[in-house]
Amino acid sequence: MTVDPVELTRALVRCPSVTPEEGGAIGLLADLLASAGFRCERADRGGIANLYARLGDTGPVLGFNGHTDVVPTGDRAAWTHDPFGAEIVGGTLFGRGACDMKSGVAAFVSAAISHAESGKDGSIAILITGDEEGDGVDGTTAILDHMTQTGERMDVCLVGEPTCPERMGEMIKIGRRGSMNVWITAHGVQGHSAYPHRAANPIHGLIDLLARLVEFPIEDASEHFDPTTLQVTGVDTGNAASNVIPATSRAMINIRFNDAHTSSSLMEWIETEMTHATERTGIRFTAETKVSGESFITPPGELSDLIVRAVEAETGARPVLSTSGGTSDARFIRSHCPVVEVGLVGRSMHQIDESVEVEHIRQLERIYARILREYFA
Amino acid sequence: MTVDPVELTRALVRCPSVTPEEGGAIGLLADLLASAGFRCERADRGGIANLYARLGDTGPVLGFNGHTDVVPTGDRAAWTHDPFGAEIVGGTLFGRGACDMKSGVAAFVSAAISHAESGKDGSIAILITGDEEGDGVDGTTAILDHMTQTGERMDVCLVGEPTCPERMGEMIKIGRRGSMNVWITAHGVQGHSAYPHRAANPIHGLIDLLARLVEFPIEDASEHFDPTTLQVTGVDTGNAASNVIPATSRAMINIRFNDAHTSSSLMEWIETEMTHATERTGIRFTAETKVSGESFITPPGELSDLIVRAVEAETGARPVLSTSGGTSDARFIRSHCPVVEVGLVGRSMHQIDESVEVEHIRQLERIYARILREYFA
Ligand SMILES: [Zn+2]
Ligand SMILES: [Zn+2]
Repeated sequence: MTVDPVELTRALVRCPSVTPEEGGAIGLLADLLASAGFRCERADRGGIANLYARLGDTGPVLGFNGHTDVVPTGDRAAWTHDPFGAEIVGGTLFGRGACDMKSGVAAFVSAAISHAESGKDGSIAILITGDEEGDGVDGTTAILDHMTQTGERMDVCLVGEPTCPERMGEMIKIGRRGSMNVWITAHGVQGHSAYPHRAANPIHGLIDLLARLVEFPIEDASEHFDPTTLQVTGVDTGNAASNVIPATSRAMINIRFNDAHTSSSLMEWIETEMTHATERTGIRFTAETKVSGESFITPPGELSDLIVRAVEAETGARPVLSTSGGTSDARFIRSHCPVVEVGLVGRSMHQIDESVEVEHIRQLERIYARILREYFA
Repeated sequence: MTVDPVELTRALVRCPSVTPEEGGAIGLLADLLASAGFRCERADRGGIANLYARLGDTGPVLGFNGHTDVVPTGDRAAWTHDPFGAEIVGGTLFGRGACDMKSGVAAFVSAAISHAESGKDGSIAILITGDEEGDGVDGTTAILDHMTQTGERMDVCLVGEPTCPERMGEMIKIGRRGSMNVWITAHGVQGHSAYPHRAANPIHGLIDLLARLVEFPIEDASEHFDPTTLQVTGVDTGNAASNVIPATSRAMINIRFNDAHTSSSLMEWIETEMTHATERTGIRFTAETKVSGESFITPPGELSDLIVRAVEAETGARPVLSTSGGTSDARFIRSHCPVVEVGLVGRSMHQIDESVEVEHIRQLERIYARILREYFA
């Protein structure tokens, strides 16, 4: 049985699967994979549809991970093509999810179904979630929990997210920086701005603290990691009265950190800076933290070598091993098995008129097919 | 004709004259002054009730200025007395406006009415507004405009606002620091927090700028002025997405400045700092300004000497000549004639259970009466 990855992408784009809606996408894939001989299990949780599918009973197990949910269309009037129409114009397929990442899912599902004919030993596991664009609590994590409970495991896993900034084949991702948010509240004493000595201005304390934090002191770029970056993405006070020193003010900070740090080591540093700022300004600080993921890396080796060879053979480009970009579900998989991301050009993801080159989908299917051949050889 | 200033205070407190409501207070005073022989003219403007009253046709003209509007009660359940009940308990009169400044108005109106009997040459002008606690656009300014149009003028003016921090007689005010608000908007380039090099974070620019501004560099306290103070009273971004670098962020600043500065000289300094911060951070800034009043002083001299003698004779305390505190309507009067503020203890103003000592009202009436006697002697 063979499946055209372009037609499968189109069918998926036509499913309006804006997180948390399944939109028919997970059901469509489950039916298709079942008819190709895959054992399909739903790992739904918290209103999210998730699919675990496996072909074969023996090891080794190569996994593919992807998501069918998409971000909202944004201003629909700004689209020049129906975001759920999957129109192809001049070799370009348009639609929400065309790039991120219904095409990636279609490419690895098609490659896996074709591979089913080969009769080789070993197994293919397919993990598809309906919640990657949301907070991901009940997405790939739910599938991994389901696998743990049922004794399923993988030896390696590929994530099919777009990984190339501009040109097919130029980049694969062997890890990701960690990401954490910190909300810092400065606590002062409210008062009249004409009598600042009777008040304590939390904003002045916050400015003092933030001026230190934004000068993140460590130059920590390494072979595979960009430097750690700290961005203050919000400061809010909500004080309507210009002549009133407010009681509190709050900053929101996002940190993308490489393997020179952990979320705990960074919080230790922030808390030390908070203490110093309190000593300087008399303003007390409290902090809340949400860690989206620690930094991780699958060190270059057998798996990445295999993928690099396949990408080079199919595209002529030798991909760099990167850890750049935001988070992905690879952050959940990495505690189960080595994980590498390899996919399309991501330029249009989340944008108006999101699109993918039809030829790139076919090229990506050939890359995945070659990886399967070599891995199970 | 004589009027009991305590009973007049009570009658005024019972008028619910929360800005911009007249609440019956202006009408009550107009009737009372008219019956005592004052020529009364309304100088209403923009929905605000204002009263100009004059006794006498000859010079010199001594003016009194005050307001009958009050700030809202705040949490009414927190009051232990009806805020518009004017109850007297153990010699203390409770109510919104008891201190700021229906008692002050009652004291100078009573003193002026008693003085009417003296038959001395010279005139008393009384300027009472219903909008001092609001933005004041149509308050004392409207009365002064009315006076200009009708050829009325004053040689000196007393404002009856509370001027004593703790004890009767300890302070009069011969000027005020200026006050201005500045709103600074930082303009950056929106982007994803994982790719800060493709964005420009306006908050980081703002932190850099504000860190300089809060270290207001000039130690400028002088004999009659407190140092200039700059307070950042708000920073707001309104960005819900922690992983998005916002396009703009905005700070609100209040400056209380002494006579070493003008609002223009301060804006020049701020704009220079904005330019430097742009050079350092690449973030562009724009500013909006609202000047509530320039700093001013009525230099110590005949008028303040006269008042100091009267206060000392009636209270035994020798008042200091101060320019402390927020703004008052003296900032409008000062371009018409020398102006000095002399009044009660202001501790409870704008608070829950605002109150005044009954004996202080009588003492203040005696101070005003003595000033009138000496001034017209
Ligand atoms: Zn994605
Ligand atoms: Zn007042």
